[in-house]
Amino acid sequence: MSSGADPNFFFKPETVAVIGATEASGKISGIIMDSLASSGFQGRIYPVNPKYSSVKGYECYPSIGAIGEAVDVAIVALPAFAVAQALEEAASRVRGAIVIGGGFSEAGEAGQALERELKSLAVKTGMRIIGPNCMGIYDTVSRLDTFFIPPERIKRPGTGHLSVVSQSGSFAVTAMDELASESTGIARVISYGNSSDVNESDLLEFLADDEHTSAVAMYLEAVVDGQRFIKAAARCAAKKPVMAVKAGRGGAGQRATFSHTASIAGRYEIYKAAFKKAGIIELDGYEEFIAACKVFGAAKARPSGGARVMIITDGGGVGVALADECARRGLEAVPLKKEVEDGLSSMLPPYFAVGNPLDLTGSATDEWFASSLEKTMAGDDYDVAIVAALWGPPGLTDGLARGIAVKADESGKPVIICSPGGEYSRDKSRLFTGAGLPVFSTPESAVRAASILAKDAAFRKGRERKPTRRQARNE
Amino acid sequence: MSSGADPNFFFKPETVAVIGATEASGKISGIIMDSLASSGFQGRIYPVNPKYSSVKGYECYPSIGAIGEAVDVAIVALPAFAVAQALEEAASRVRGAIVIGGGFSEAGEAGQALERELKSLAVKTGMRIIGPNCMGIYDTVSRLDTFFIPPERIKRPGTGHLSVVSQSGSFAVTAMDELASESTGIARVISYGNSSDVNESDLLEFLADDEHTSAVAMYLEAVVDGQRFIKAAARCAAKKPVMAVKAGRGGAGQRATFSHTASIAGRYEIYKAAFKKAGIIELDGYEEFIAACKVFGAAKARPSGGARVMIITDGGGVGVALADECARRGLEAVPLKKEVEDGLSSMLPPYFAVGNPLDLTGSATDEWFASSLEKTMAGDDYDVAIVAALWGPPGLTDGLARGIAVKADESGKPVIICSPGGEYSRDKSRLFTGAGLPVFSTPESAVRAASILAKDAAFRKGRERKPTRRQARNE
Repeated sequence: MSSGADPNFFFKPETVAVIGATEASGKISGIIMDSLASSGFQGRIYPVNPKYSSVKGYECYPSIGAIGEAVDVAIVALPAFAVAQALEEAASRVRGAIVIGGGFSEAGEAGQALERELKSLAVKTGMRIIGPNCMGIYDTVSRLDTFFIPPERIKRPGTGHLSVVSQSGSFAVTAMDELASESTGIARVISYGNSSDVNESDLLEFLADDEHTSAVAMYLEAVVDGQRFIKAAARCAAKKPVMAVKAGRGGAGQRATFSHTASIAGRYEIYKAAFKKAGIIELDGYEEFIAACKVFGAAKARPSGGARVMIITDGGGVGVALADECARRGLEAVPLKKEVEDGLSSMLPPYFAVGNPLDLTGSATDEWFASSLEKTMAGDDYDVAIVAALWGPPGLTDGLARGIAVKADESGKPVIICSPGGEYSRDKSRLFTGAGLPVFSTPESAVRAASILAKDAAFRKGRERKPTRRQARNE
Repeated sequence: MSSGADPNFFFKPETVAVIGATEASGKISGIIMDSLASSGFQGRIYPVNPKYSSVKGYECYPSIGAIGEAVDVAIVALPAFAVAQALEEAASRVRGAIVIGGGFSEAGEAGQALERELKSLAVKTGMRIIGPNCMGIYDTVSRLDTFFIPPERIKRPGTGHLSVVSQSGSFAVTAMDELASESTGIARVISYGNSSDVNESDLLEFLADDEHTSAVAMYLEAVVDGQRFIKAAARCAAKKPVMAVKAGRGGAGQRATFSHTASIAGRYEIYKAAFKKAGIIELDGYEEFIAACKVFGAAKARPSGGARVMIITDGGGVGVALADECARRGLEAVPLKKEVEDGLSSMLPPYFAVGNPLDLTGSATDEWFASSLEKTMAGDDYDVAIVAALWGPPGLTDGLARGIAVKADESGKPVIICSPGGEYSRDKSRLFTGAGLPVFSTPESAVRAASILAKDAAFRKGRERKPTRRQARNE
């Protein structure tokens, strides 16, 4: 049950209070103070704790009431039993609270009673609450960072145009950290835990209209209000891709969501149907989630037109693995047209077998890769290219990534890089991420990404063909 | 058509010649000379090239005949057109040749004729040939290394007890490099390319009896002699796990195998049936191949008894993802027995929800992880444990890996580590690999590994139950 007030202010706060702030960098509230101080947040920061007169160099207040102005977002880092009272006292001067700690509905009857208090408080006062049992918000637009794990343990992604909504804090944190290490940027990450007040539908409504967000990836354990969710998701999906993992699909996973975020996971089939109705692209787990984030979050992310894949590689076996995986996922490595084949043959040595997959072999050069991409993607034969560059061939240089990025731009189509192997390859793959291209370390993950693009294309095409109600009436 | 002589000598050579050896480290033969010199090979090395009197500090011979002794293995680094004549001249003094270069059956009619010459030569002279169009052998037992990519580009794995057989050179090289970067050891890697003479069955026969090999992972595009292959694989699988990817399963992938290693990939269904008959565990692509290598190649690799999985984590969302993936793959996160649940509850704070997955939350400590593993794996409730340690919680130290490894040893059961995330986590995951445990960076890959162990267990149980012919007759 939402209290109704628009929670968008969480994403443009001017004043932030940390209730229960401490000096100790090892404690949750200390880490949050450090994060706020170092994240580039431009608003005013008010630690609140009657025990201190200053925390981390900021003047510390004995109560919210003692701060000379209203507070947009209060981050609450108190034990579960103390949260409701602190918020009740603060409610008249606080628009929204992020309740970090656990010990609520996910933790037995006593915790359930505490969470009911929070819910009533939100309804009664109109204060919006994110959480409890969550990490809160990491936002590269407002620069708010309430994640209570220090950046040396969990790297923060740079600015990007993808937003992540996750009921699970650990899932959000792990994904953020992985995306940061792979140079995928982020607009906003929201970990909303037990969703006592602000829920997935509120967040979708905000993100639908958020100009900084061009795609949304979600991790859901349960949805609070199915009808509202479908409406909010459909409105968002009409504007930008919305993708979601439904976690807790049955058996042990389903049981686990209850002790995790107090979610009653519900029948998976119902979620599947709701996703379909809303136009949400379903992701089947962590690996697809990361693939979706990387392919839609890349600086040079481009939507695909469909399922026709061109594969270019210098490793024959990896080309075969890519083609096999495409077939498994309903994508097709369509054979080359005669004139394209002839164009490639005239560029390559006479004994080369030219096809799709195109194997440039250990004789590959930067120029061969770039020209092959150009020649195959020039017409309308392919919707997406997967370029699998193994770094063995001596003819490859650091210029390879730039050359491919230029031809990718010219083609106007998505180009996905597959760069499997060990440390040398992982190091070299940064050249591709640096050039704005999405990079995957296995053939399967590259094809996962292409497959998600194809699903998005199919959804968009379906929408174009489907007349609106008004059109239908006029026909 | 094999020439029949046992090719095992390839794995214990005392004398190695490099035909076409050069000084240039940028050329294939130069890289091979460097590899042989630095790999710790203890036999005698003879560069052969009429143009030089010494190569890389070794005395260079104008011909094989000029070397004062017979040669066990001749590595041929010559252009395709020159190979057959060079081998014909050398045949009387060489037991086996590794023909590195391409330009044979995979490269049109002229190449096919050249490869037919090689085949006839092998039959006529009894000299065994590995290749052409291959990387040859990387062997941590004999220390032979014919892989022509420098170690700064492709890392060599350390000594281990897993052997890899791959028709594709790039697949072998990429997997080796990835395994080396993840500290998985290797006994032998054989990349055998077009299999003009030595083929997958020869290699399985050798590996079946190889005391240094405890598990075999294969990448196959095609099999030369189906009946012989099933027999060889069944004999090997009776002694140790044999796992294989069938590449080129249809459509574009199938077409690609022909231009890659001149393999006629054949109907996938036939391969599937043959694998089943032989007791080969089928792997569905690169990711399963790597998972199989890591879980069977880990220093503390242990077979599993079955499909009952215990999941222990400090990240609730990752626990749910693991449980969901287990369900999808036919594994089961079986609920805890009452007495085990009570034992865990008495160790953990009273408000903890104790179950399987077991979520130790952000309050997790090294001790909680170790004790949870001990308490859950002590009885016969579980066949395998997946421990997903996220490194956020401040209570975790570098001692975590050692503590888990000790309890894993005590349990006598396989323990799989899931350590997702970015750079910090990747760095910390080395503590687990250092302790001999297999580590996976996504929930899906950890469950892939558990699933391969379960398939191996099911195969072994099936064998135990099946009476031998003699037993059946006596009943």
